[in-house]
Amino acid sequence: MLHRNIITPVVLCGGSGTRLWPLSRKSFPKQFVPLINGKSLLQLTLERVRPLGPGLMVVTAEAHRFMVADALQTVPGSAQVILEPVARNTAAAMALAALLAEQNGQPEALLLFCPSDHHIPDAAAFARTVEQGVPAAEGGAIVTFGIVPSSPSTAYGYIQHGARRADGAQQVERFIEKPGADHALQLLLSGEVLWNAGIFLCRASTLLRALQQHAPDILASCREALPAPLASTEATGPQYVTPLPGAFAACRSQSIDYAVMEHHANVAVVPYTGAWSDVGSWNAVAELTPADAQSNRIEGQGHAHLSHDTYIHAPHRPVVALGTKNLLIIDTPDALLVAHRDCAEQVKDVVAQLESQQCAQAVIHRKVARPWGWYDSIDLGERFQVKRIGVKPGASLSLQKHHHRAEHWIVVKGTAEVTRGSETFLLSENQSTYIPIGEVHRLRNPGRLELEMIEVQSGSYLGEDDIVRLEDTYGRVTPHPVPTP
Amino acid sequence: MLHRNIITPVVLCGGSGTRLWPLSRKSFPKQFVPLINGKSLLQLTLERVRPLGPGLMVVTAEAHRFMVADALQTVPGSAQVILEPVARNTAAAMALAALLAEQNGQPEALLLFCPSDHHIPDAAAFARTVEQGVPAAEGGAIVTFGIVPSSPSTAYGYIQHGARRADGAQQVERFIEKPGADHALQLLLSGEVLWNAGIFLCRASTLLRALQQHAPDILASCREALPAPLASTEATGPQYVTPLPGAFAACRSQSIDYAVMEHHANVAVVPYTGAWSDVGSWNAVAELTPADAQSNRIEGQGHAHLSHDTYIHAPHRPVVALGTKNLLIIDTPDALLVAHRDCAEQVKDVVAQLESQQCAQAVIHRKVARPWGWYDSIDLGERFQVKRIGVKPGASLSLQKHHHRAEHWIVVKGTAEVTRGSETFLLSENQSTYIPIGEVHRLRNPGRLELEMIEVQSGSYLGEDDIVRLEDTYGRVTPHPVPTP
Repeated sequence: MLHRNIITPVVLCGGSGTRLWPLSRKSFPKQFVPLINGKSLLQLTLERVRPLGPGLMVVTAEAHRFMVADALQTVPGSAQVILEPVARNTAAAMALAALLAEQNGQPEALLLFCPSDHHIPDAAAFARTVEQGVPAAEGGAIVTFGIVPSSPSTAYGYIQHGARRADGAQQVERFIEKPGADHALQLLLSGEVLWNAGIFLCRASTLLRALQQHAPDILASCREALPAPLASTEATGPQYVTPLPGAFAACRSQSIDYAVMEHHANVAVVPYTGAWSDVGSWNAVAELTPADAQSNRIEGQGHAHLSHDTYIHAPHRPVVALGTKNLLIIDTPDALLVAHRDCAEQVKDVVAQLESQQCAQAVIHRKVARPWGWYDSIDLGERFQVKRIGVKPGASLSLQKHHHRAEHWIVVKGTAEVTRGSETFLLSENQSTYIPIGEVHRLRNPGRLELEMIEVQSGSYLGEDDIVRLEDTYGRVTPHPVPTP
Repeated sequence: MLHRNIITPVVLCGGSGTRLWPLSRKSFPKQFVPLINGKSLLQLTLERVRPLGPGLMVVTAEAHRFMVADALQTVPGSAQVILEPVARNTAAAMALAALLAEQNGQPEALLLFCPSDHHIPDAAAFARTVEQGVPAAEGGAIVTFGIVPSSPSTAYGYIQHGARRADGAQQVERFIEKPGADHALQLLLSGEVLWNAGIFLCRASTLLRALQQHAPDILASCREALPAPLASTEATGPQYVTPLPGAFAACRSQSIDYAVMEHHANVAVVPYTGAWSDVGSWNAVAELTPADAQSNRIEGQGHAHLSHDTYIHAPHRPVVALGTKNLLIIDTPDALLVAHRDCAEQVKDVVAQLESQQCAQAVIHRKVARPWGWYDSIDLGERFQVKRIGVKPGASLSLQKHHHRAEHWIVVKGTAEVTRGSETFLLSENQSTYIPIGEVHRLRNPGRLELEMIEVQSGSYLGEDDIVRLEDTYGRVTPHPVPTP
């Protein structure tokens, strides 16, 4: 157990996860969706890697910082969060983390890079496997952890391993791209391959040298983009690190496999024999739910009649499948997917097409996460909109005003502190107030329980962009967020 | 055209239409659903038969009187509406209409019995066919109109016709129950059969004599149940006729085919050659929407990718079908059906099962029709509920109070007249008020446009039964409705 406290996990949290649309969307990707017993894959990943050492890094999109902060609150200890202004794939994300370790004065730190959106139920078995890779990583190798294949899957890349090394790991002979069905079977029968799960362990300095050797342009862009880390302004909460947008945008976008791993000599692999899923499609999600006698897998209010091999995700309302087979039915409050199981990989194409048709549901959810909580647009009429709003304890919306809408607020749970013009007053459950057009106002939750409100907006224009922010705890007054939590 | 003004159409509007769940439900059956270009089948039926004569009768369930009244407002002239306290099938419904014609002093009136839930696009062709049956009906026959079959369907009963009669119609040899596939093909090839569409023309006296002969108990029960018709209290609007609940409940429930037609000697048939659909299943509804090149039929916000022979009904939100075939996808705000086309007939079994499981969506819609308008329950929390409420011009909710809930009202369209305790005041768009627990209140729409309101209910119990009605325009203070419109 000695090794654990010298590993710094780096959780790569930049995926967009459109394969799990409509549950996962660009604005609320797969890793944030509460998929496993109400917990998100990010949360489970943080719980799994948090015990491995005192340090912890997360690399994520700037737009998702508040959702990452929420997830980090569920695990102990401090963390550094690198906020990417644009997505530039895994090579750049890993380079930023290695450079940050260097800036932290720990160039020899062992970094464990893990995707945030995989499901690995047995955290102890995973930790034991990671430890097996430590000698090789300490010796200067990049160590990857390959999954022992359970089928000739065509959904994953493969790693062909060779001889056992002196450090206990196996040498990687080559990385193989997603194979066709015949090739996959042949690989599986060879007994010499593992699935590439995108998990890597190495010293920060090892990765930086490898990047310098194989992708110096990526390393240079990242070095230019990474400023000296800003100290967190609060005692608790993560420390945010914001790469310079211009420099980082100029960085080449490539995966670490293409940029480094396929070319690097000293890459070792340790097999992971425990259960693993990349939760990469609705078929993989379906596998997480037990099957009934007809091989149906039903979550929530699903009903199957004369159906078999049908997966129903129905958390909100009754969904009936009648006489269906090999079907995936995914119901969400504002969009529905019905797909043949064989087409699960094509979901991302559908989302791209919906996005090109300006379908809002391709990208955003009806229920939207905000730094202060969330809102859910429950009804929309010609000149009005009804929202249900949740505000976290202690959180506060910006001091704001609207040019085109008035708002009626009714508190249905908890206590609200309302600023309206020059007055500030409290509203408790079943009390209401009215914010006229143009009136400066602010909503705050002064209590220890969540505040819930119904807001009825009334006006000729109800777009989210009719908001003038005068003050904001989350730095949303200026065009670029100021990194305060 | 002479005959037209001597026919009294009798629209049979008692069906529950669970085959078209989740769009059609017991509380809002198929005939009321706006299925064809925003019009309901009832409305289209009334438009089709209204020109046939000055009289018009509708037989419906008491619970649906206000929806029938709404549909009647779209056609000119007066009507008599028989409100069945319980459903007793077509023999009893037709007996009531014939007895009412007798009470009206018109025992020799030609009654045209039509289902309210069939689709017959060509009203003129239908009227011409009905006229062809008049001589036989005037001569004392019961005339039925059979549909010229377009396929060996197993979904309909058949009528085997014989020789041409002197009155121009054809003699009915026998009624044949829904056949198996082989039998249906054999029948079709015989060239001597028509589909039984349940449309009949005869004198009231003819039907009463036939009932006396073949089902005297049904006639006796109906005669006992039918009081002298009550005069309508308003100059406009239908005249309601309410059979005595006890006597009518005692009536035997049987279809007119079993009770009379199969046994009666003088039954004639006139073929109808125009387009007809009983809209009896989702497959039939799908046929009403044009197919694309992949034989998909898409209504509303449906998207089909790599799919064929898929019907999507998606009026409210995006619904994506991916790689599906032979599928029916019916989306409604609070329930979803995904069914293989071959299982369309089993939808009613699913509804029965959902009902036995106390699933509210089996029976009622989220949006509920009321005599004064409608409400839609748009959100529900632990101690609150949000409703969108529409009130028709001039309509008024009951003077009422609640023991367990307070209400916040916000007008989002039109003008409301609010009575609260001893005060009465007007609210216009964007104005609001508060009704405390226990306060007597009333909502009225004094304007000429529809009123729409958002109501936020707050309290420990939010059931529809927490309502004390002190006065009601629609007779809902007493347990049994008083027949005022």
